[in-house]
Amino acid sequence: MRALFIGRFQPFHLGHLGAVKWILERVEELVIGIGSAQYAYMPKNPFTAGERLLMIHRSLKAEGLAHRVMTTLIPDTDSVHALWPAYVEMYSPPFSKVYSNDPLTLMLMRDYGYEAEEVPLIDRSRLSGTYVRSLMAKGDESWRELVPKPVAEVIDAIDGEKRVQRIYQLHGLV
Amino acid sequence: MRALFIGRFQPFHLGHLGAVKWILERVEELVIGIGSAQYAYMPKNPFTAGERLLMIHRSLKAEGLAHRVMTTLIPDTDSVHALWPAYVEMYSPPFSKVYSNDPLTLMLMRDYGYEAEEVPLIDRSRLSGTYVRSLMAKGDESWRELVPKPVAEVIDAIDGEKRVQRIYQLHGLV
Amino acid sequence: MRALFIGRFQPFHLGHLGAVKWILERVEELVIGIGSAQYAYMPKNPFTAGERLLMIHRSLKAEGLAHRVMTTLIPDTDSVHALWPAYVEMYSPPFSKVYSNDPLTLMLMRDYGYEAEEVPLIDRSRLSGTYVRSLMAKGDESWRELVPKPVAEVIDAIDGEKRVQRIYQLHGLV
Amino acid sequence: MRALFIGRFQPFHLGHLGAVKWILERVEELVIGIGSAQYAYMPKNPFTAGERLLMIHRSLKAEGLAHRVMTTLIPDTDSVHALWPAYVEMYSPPFSKVYSNDPLTLMLMRDYGYEAEEVPLIDRSRLSGTYVRSLMAKGDESWRELVPKPVAEVIDAIDGEKRVQRIYQLHGLV
Amino acid sequence: MRALFIGRFQPFHLGHLGAVKWILERVEELVIGIGSAQYAYMPKNPFTAGERLLMIHRSLKAEGLAHRVMTTLIPDTDSVHALWPAYVEMYSPPFSKVYSNDPLTLMLMRDYGYEAEEVPLIDRSRLSGTYVRSLMAKGDESWRELVPKPVAEVIDAIDGEKRVQRIYQLHGLV
Amino acid sequence: MRALFIGRFQPFHLGHLGAVKWILERVEELVIGIGSAQYAYMPKNPFTAGERLLMIHRSLKAEGLAHRVMTTLIPDTDSVHALWPAYVEMYSPPFSKVYSNDPLTLMLMRDYGYEAEEVPLIDRSRLSGTYVRSLMAKGDESWRELVPKPVAEVIDAIDGEKRVQRIYQLHGLV
Repeated sequence: MRALFIGRFQPFHLGHLGAVKWILERVEELVIGIGSAQYAYMPKNPFTAGERLLMIHRSLKAEGLAHRVMTTLIPDTDSVHALWPAYVEMYSPPFSKVYSNDPLTLMLMRDYGYEAEEVPLIDRSRLSGTYVRSLMAKGDESWRELVPKPVAEVIDAIDGEKRVQRIYQLHGLV
Repeated sequence: MRALFIGRFQPFHLGHLGAVKWILERVEELVIGIGSAQYAYMPKNPFTAGERLLMIHRSLKAEGLAHRVMTTLIPDTDSVHALWPAYVEMYSPPFSKVYSNDPLTLMLMRDYGYEAEEVPLIDRSRLSGTYVRSLMAKGDESWRELVPKPVAEVIDAIDGEKRVQRIYQLHGLV
Repeated sequence: MRALFIGRFQPFHLGHLGAVKWILERVEELVIGIGSAQYAYMPKNPFTAGERLLMIHRSLKAEGLAHRVMTTLIPDTDSVHALWPAYVEMYSPPFSKVYSNDPLTLMLMRDYGYEAEEVPLIDRSRLSGTYVRSLMAKGDESWRELVPKPVAEVIDAIDGEKRVQRIYQLHGLV
Repeated sequence: MRALFIGRFQPFHLGHLGAVKWILERVEELVIGIGSAQYAYMPKNPFTAGERLLMIHRSLKAEGLAHRVMTTLIPDTDSVHALWPAYVEMYSPPFSKVYSNDPLTLMLMRDYGYEAEEVPLIDRSRLSGTYVRSLMAKGDESWRELVPKPVAEVIDAIDGEKRVQRIYQLHGLV
Repeated sequence: MRALFIGRFQPFHLGHLGAVKWILERVEELVIGIGSAQYAYMPKNPFTAGERLLMIHRSLKAEGLAHRVMTTLIPDTDSVHALWPAYVEMYSPPFSKVYSNDPLTLMLMRDYGYEAEEVPLIDRSRLSGTYVRSLMAKGDESWRELVPKPVAEVIDAIDGEKRVQRIYQLHGLV
Repeated sequence: MRALFIGRFQPFHLGHLGAVKWILERVEELVIGIGSAQYAYMPKNPFTAGERLLMIHRSLKAEGLAHRVMTTLIPDTDSVHALWPAYVEMYSPPFSKVYSNDPLTLMLMRDYGYEAEEVPLIDRSRLSGTYVRSLMAKGDESWRELVPKPVAEVIDAIDGEKRVQRIYQLHGLV
């Protein structure tokens, strides 16, 4: 059985990693769909799809899981929601179940005919992309404890903390 | 060092697999960029990006190489060539070298400032996507010898040989 | 004389039906342009263009008006307002007058050279798409009194009330 | 039962009208999907979607069939074939069967899960859009015998014969 | 040396003209990039790119500077920020430095590898597009003192003050 | 009176310059619309819009005509011809007459309501973009005699002759 796990992964944090492991206990093969793939340099989406892909790959490799997971990119359809599931089908290998924590994703995929399920999240107050980005924006280094070590390395290599700070400043968020 | 290998992989054949191995002898980490990602159901592009992704992942896993390779999707920019390298940069992890056997790809990436190199191809008359598709279109089962075993399995699972035949017939090519 | 009546019809309610009848007393032939055609699954636009088309057709058929009215779809141009009238001209039969209750539509079509007029609306506080959707979102069945009977049937057939509820919940609107 | 009949209708000719009648003997309600909706001023697609819509409406009205038929517009997806069925679903009322004489349409809709059937065509050598347009391009008035009378009236009202001639000349086709 | 000055110029005011002169003291040749080129008829973007182009050309001609300045159009990429610098490069002659007062522009162009600098602005409280538009929206004729004389002439010729008023009313801003 | 002259200017040659002068004897102010603005790196469109803009500006400056001419960019609408005139209107200052030597441009603009006229061309066999590009592709330096001197300088600065050669080779045209 092959499942699809859709998220934005801005950035890929320990909650996501836990979800991947939880899913891999239930299915043989997993496709990770990086959503809102075309967006970057925004407060909610600071990292490019390519950068997020690298974070995910490195994290899974460190866990010895890279051979069981494929990654793909799913663009946002700019509110043309009725087309979005067709994009998902086009850009993902065939799958029989969808996992996500985004309510719109769950709704659209269910209406399209798929079984779609939320992933149990642990420590949701801290393990959330919003929280991790807000720490980065404040220069609070404790964000490093909330992401897999390889993710912190990728973010450092692209000077990502500073990027998040500049984007938040630009939008008057810090 | 991380390199990017761009192709259409319609389908991923033994020539592609040989190229991946050849590159992996030279670089530590490889990103495979699946080009013309949005196209399918065409004589030159019968398979969706998702299907091609599955072919590649399964082939690399069988070779024990999945942990060294990431896959991404690169859409065609409908002849707006001047934008194409920016799409590549957006959808790929950062890379320092490009490999491809498509002359336009090489030209565009070089003009954009990248080092770009052709991959040596073996048995080019048989190990080409065009040739593999033409065999499939004729119902000549020898195409199976030209692709990694997992690719043949993926194609069988999606009834791909028949799809290629129908597409070729539709365009008056058989 | 042929007129064009543009709206979003989310859903087509008795105010819209009254407007159509009022216009048909003044012109021989009417084109109904379903605006924001590409949107659905949003609080302001829950129904697809196809679903709205069915609501309109069934309502007009029930009134014996189907032979005097054509329907077409007008996509939103994502804020490229200067192009929008050209889309209207491309997707509608030629027309000599525009009716709408959307101020931007009236402004753009007038600046483009068309005569454009508001339609007198009755009972505007209840006969508005916003109000009908808010009733549906609350599970208040009185929305049924505000739409033509065939519209309620279409909405029931696609489980539309529940869709509106889920979309409103998703956006924290109920 | 509701069916969808997809074509380009460049222009709507007597073969199309015959097909509509043949389908209406088999289903209660019909949606006519005007394909390649965004194209016009091309040798294969001289008329806008709006003009084609008017041709169809007037022809069906003359036959007393307007109340049993809805029309909608289906854009071409510029070779992104895997998305096209989702566009069809978004822009059409729900349907349980597809009719078309375009092989790619039949293939895509079948692979998407729909029952799709060709419509029997009579007098195919003369009742074809290509042939009708070629007569118009030559100024051979016999095209008028191949289309419903209201279609000829619409074409005359928009000076359509001359438009076809100019487009064919432009492309060196006459 | 050739520089690029990017702004939206809604409308081109005396602050912009001052900036152009300040830049022309530092570089030989200047390209003015009219940003958000596809937008018009919006509160922040009332004028089309073509209208803004005319304002700029007439103002520079009146100052005897037209021969040292080129104008081009840069479309907004609808939040796909990572592609935006590539659009700039495609639509502008090659340049070695960027001037702008938009923080996102400066950030994106710097991350893309360009030297990018803010232009010193004088009398920023009055010489701002937002302020000029707000005066126009209120019918306060003092906006005329804040723009070059040829800009006022262009705005009068297209009845621009009234357009701004109607747009502001439409959005409930006056 | 303001006129619009539309062409692709691949590259801007002496025939174009002659046309500009001929038009400027008839109108006060001219807008040059650079068509197919988004294309480059193709046999028919080797140069970006930005590069073509620079060629035109430098040529007109050398002739002392820069103050009478504005340049703008007109994208191709990918065969959605019915929208193209609206793009022209959006991206150009208002104009009362169109000049072009492209038959489709003339047809579309006339059908849209504009007066549109061909420009008399001298020495058409040599002063054509196709011919100039074919000389460049062959490495025949005589193309330099067919373009304004500043155009040759721009082409040299971007290594344009070699680019044309590579593109022609890529497409098997030399």
